[in-house]
Amino acid sequence: MPKIITLHVGTGKYQEEQIADDQFLTGGRALSSQLVAQIVPPEADALGPDNILAFCCGVLAGTTITNANRISVGGKSPLTGTIKESNAGGTFAYHMGRLGIRSIICEGPLAEKDVWKVIHISTKGVKVEDGTDLAGSGCYDKSEMLTKRFGKGISFAIIGPVAEQLMRTAAIAVSDPQNRPSRFCGRGGMGAVMASKGIQAIVLDPSDTPPVQPQDKERFKAASRTIAELVNNTPQTAKVFRKYGTAAMIDVGQGLGFLPVNNFTRGRFEQSEQINGQALYDTISARGGEGKTSHACMPGCLVKCSNIYPDKEGKYLVSPLEYETIGLMGPNLGIGDLDVIAELNYIANDCGVDTVDSGAAIGVAMQAGLAEFGDSAAALSMMKEIRQSTILGKLLGSGAETTAKVLGVYQAPTAKGQAFPAYDPRAMKGLAATYATSPMGADHTAGHTIRSAVDDHHGFKGQAAASRLAQVGTLQWDSLGFCYFLGTALPDLSLLCEIIKAIHDKEVTPAQIRAMAVETLKTERDFNRKAGFGPAHDRLNEYFHKVKNPDTGTVCDIPTADITDLMDDNKLAD
Amino acid sequence: MPKIITLHVGTGKYQEEQIADDQFLTGGRALSSQLVAQIVPPEADALGPDNILAFCCGVLAGTTITNANRISVGGKSPLTGTIKESNAGGTFAYHMGRLGIRSIICEGPLAEKDVWKVIHISTKGVKVEDGTDLAGSGCYDKSEMLTKRFGKGISFAIIGPVAEQLMRTAAIAVSDPQNRPSRFCGRGGMGAVMASKGIQAIVLDPSDTPPVQPQDKERFKAASRTIAELVNNTPQTAKVFRKYGTAAMIDVGQGLGFLPVNNFTRGRFEQSEQINGQALYDTISARGGEGKTSHACMPGCLVKCSNIYPDKEGKYLVSPLEYETIGLMGPNLGIGDLDVIAELNYIANDCGVDTVDSGAAIGVAMQAGLAEFGDSAAALSMMKEIRQSTILGKLLGSGAETTAKVLGVYQAPTAKGQAFPAYDPRAMKGLAATYATSPMGADHTAGHTIRSAVDDHHGFKGQAAASRLAQVGTLQWDSLGFCYFLGTALPDLSLLCEIIKAIHDKEVTPAQIRAMAVETLKTERDFNRKAGFGPAHDRLNEYFHKVKNPDTGTVCDIPTADITDLMDDNKLAD
Repeated sequence: MPKIITLHVGTGKYQEEQIADDQFLTGGRALSSQLVAQIVPPEADALGPDNILAFCCGVLAGTTITNANRISVGGKSPLTGTIKESNAGGTFAYHMGRLGIRSIICEGPLAEKDVWKVIHISTKGVKVEDGTDLAGSGCYDKSEMLTKRFGKGISFAIIGPVAEQLMRTAAIAVSDPQNRPSRFCGRGGMGAVMASKGIQAIVLDPSDTPPVQPQDKERFKAASRTIAELVNNTPQTAKVFRKYGTAAMIDVGQGLGFLPVNNFTRGRFEQSEQINGQALYDTISARGGEGKTSHACMPGCLVKCSNIYPDKEGKYLVSPLEYETIGLMGPNLGIGDLDVIAELNYIANDCGVDTVDSGAAIGVAMQAGLAEFGDSAAALSMMKEIRQSTILGKLLGSGAETTAKVLGVYQAPTAKGQAFPAYDPRAMKGLAATYATSPMGADHTAGHTIRSAVDDHHGFKGQAAASRLAQVGTLQWDSLGFCYFLGTALPDLSLLCEIIKAIHDKEVTPAQIRAMAVETLKTERDFNRKAGFGPAHDRLNEYFHKVKNPDTGTVCDIPTADITDLMDDNKLAD
Repeated sequence: MPKIITLHVGTGKYQEEQIADDQFLTGGRALSSQLVAQIVPPEADALGPDNILAFCCGVLAGTTITNANRISVGGKSPLTGTIKESNAGGTFAYHMGRLGIRSIICEGPLAEKDVWKVIHISTKGVKVEDGTDLAGSGCYDKSEMLTKRFGKGISFAIIGPVAEQLMRTAAIAVSDPQNRPSRFCGRGGMGAVMASKGIQAIVLDPSDTPPVQPQDKERFKAASRTIAELVNNTPQTAKVFRKYGTAAMIDVGQGLGFLPVNNFTRGRFEQSEQINGQALYDTISARGGEGKTSHACMPGCLVKCSNIYPDKEGKYLVSPLEYETIGLMGPNLGIGDLDVIAELNYIANDCGVDTVDSGAAIGVAMQAGLAEFGDSAAALSMMKEIRQSTILGKLLGSGAETTAKVLGVYQAPTAKGQAFPAYDPRAMKGLAATYATSPMGADHTAGHTIRSAVDDHHGFKGQAAASRLAQVGTLQWDSLGFCYFLGTALPDLSLLCEIIKAIHDKEVTPAQIRAMAVETLKTERDFNRKAGFGPAHDRLNEYFHKVKNPDTGTVCDIPTADITDLMDDNKLAD
């Protein structure tokens, strides 16, 4: 059975504990939320000594099964004040699985100023080393420093300079297969929690630990072949995601009017064709060089929705350019230029800040009159201020909600303190319900409804129920450590149960997975209630309830009764 | 019966309604909280169209009875998110009483940018006039402009440039008898609410309306003579307040270790004798000129705790220099120089910002390393940035809690988003209970326990109960429109009942007043619960629960059970 490592960062002491047999399936968000709820007092200051940071992988981490190696990072969020799980792809969870680790829990007091640590984990154990040399550098430089110091075979989770300043939208960057810091636990400021404990990096060295091998090779081969066929024969995974990545969503947003345009004050963008999936594909293809229209962010991924965006000379600029970032740093700022968006994205990645909340914060600053919408130079300048930690930079790095409060902006695109991802909730009301009620705050990955069976994304009918289904549905994938994009190719979870049987010789049913998801949502809601959240917080910022999206003519008008029903724990298992 | 005016600021239309007979006694905070609870949806954005601003005076406003003319301003607070009442002395309530007005409710949509109004109220009615000329000026200039425009006989409530920028600690300045903008509804950002509705000033012209006359002159004379004797024979009112003002508290704070020193990280200040009541008295006396060691902020006041602090040439610099301001802008910043504190206070008053929250915010900025504690030039520079609405200024003007969040400071001296006044709650635990549980957030005037019957201000025993008594006790004064300093001279409220009988020929009992206070507290708590506040919010920022005040060796350790008991509505009337 894999183990849980509990590390007291201050002393460097740690315990290892094998997970209990009845916890075998529990991983990813299910495990991180369980640990946070067990260990963290709900009223704790998220950047105080009582918070924890729990890195949790899923039951199939360490295998090369497609989509199986996402890393969940849990703690109390300094951005939302809620329980938080933020997950990413990359190689970190894969190496955790190989090292036989299900979770790394970082506890410890507030770090002293300018004292930084690197945590190194290998088959030889856990070492807490000095990490002061990393402080102040960007994520790209830190990646190279770590690779130089510990060798190419490592994976890592690191913070950037934004986290060092305890900015509340600081991300945790996770290595991709090329050891670039390109996969992000972006939402909720988990990077700031990592910094509050003085951790610059967690480095995993999986030397001498091969990929996890199946107990039943034939069964494994058969099941993985079936999965591969499904992925390769499903248009969404094989054609849309693999060719255009998530940027395919731009055209959908333009159609439905949910694009974030000029700080979410409009829903359609006249320059959408300059930044859509086709434009991205064409640009990357035309430039060649180090660019890639399709790229696997983790070992074994067959979907390959990632990409590498090259500059005009064909050199690596940023990876991946994704829909959320394009939306928030493009139309949301009135910018229709992929090169500018890619540059903004590069700076954000290098300084380790959430692209969604920082893009939204810059949009709010433009709304406040600090610059005109469409002013690319101003947007780049503001992103550089975040990198340089100027006062404006720290404000923007505190997220869209705080930026709006300080600059006196009514139109704050936020729920529970967190910026909306690139979907105007007035034009996709299932997501409005998710933004309003998810324990995570505004987060499309916490219950996406773009594929939900609703009559009309602009209407309120059935949206809360669709959100509930989506919230529980996503939680299944997050708790298995899987990328939920695989869900578009699989008819249900039975094939994953088959794979778990083949790898671990353990019987698992879809019902068990679903029960784990339901329990997790209950646990998270319970934590949040104790942390001070109630029905009054299950809504969007007022502007979105009162002022119409001019391109759809709709406001967020989901009836309170529907939201109350959605928040009824007793109905989660329905 | 006096009337309630409801003004729709956008259209200029208004209704007048006589208060009901059974509402005769209801004024001040009781009335403002009742109106807010009736009209404002608890979930409303405090700077959105659904909030109101309710100016309410007390039952004896318009008379020249000592301490009877405080003005309560109610609304939902953009700083705390709670229901809010902020009150001040001055002449505004006195003129309301003369004009037969118990409340002026300002409703209306969000103001358009750069569109500003002045509301003029006289016996001829309510007029909404253009106020664009006032925008951008400081409160002192605005006062002169209004006096020039409307004559010397007016009183006013105005906002400063900080409110115009919607900063969440913006105050409302109220005229004193010399028509200086020196009395402040300082806490909770009510100035920003006023600005959100586009109101620069409310001007009251009481021409042809004499002071309210008693129905029974003999009875009135007898009762007021008794009150005057009590005030003049009680050491606290006649000697301490009248000679030293509230600055007398510096020595008490130094003794008990509750002074806010260096962002509340210590409780005693080595330079306390340079800034205490005696130093203030001596400085004002020695300089002479326009300085006054004692000054009445409202007509008829016998306590006269206000003062006028002159510069070195004897010219008026600021009025009054009070304990809270001295504490937050002096020791809290490591500054032991009354002239610097007075200059900081002058700028704060001129730009219309709460001295408590702005002083605390500068302390937090010093904690973050923006300047050294004790650096007067840096403190003045930061206060000027607030005045100039730079980005740093807007951040500081958003209050200590937001400043701490943005600058990554753990030691935020706040509860419910509002900065502590000048009492370290670890060294006066009755106030810790008040900060934690008052519907108003951290506010010493919402339930002061310095005179409570507790064994030890450093111990937790009996503090929650003392806070409850003080919260209800204060609410009685606030709901009568009285300054609660009178309470130190009166044995109970029966003399006020006698005065009410003499003036209005209405029978009122102390029990009725108490019942009004209890009902108000219930109303406020109910609003807050609906607005999303619960037990998790009934605490101080974590630092004060975890880290000892080094000068007292104490943390805030009031048992949860005591706080739960304090928050039990059923026990309020005990």
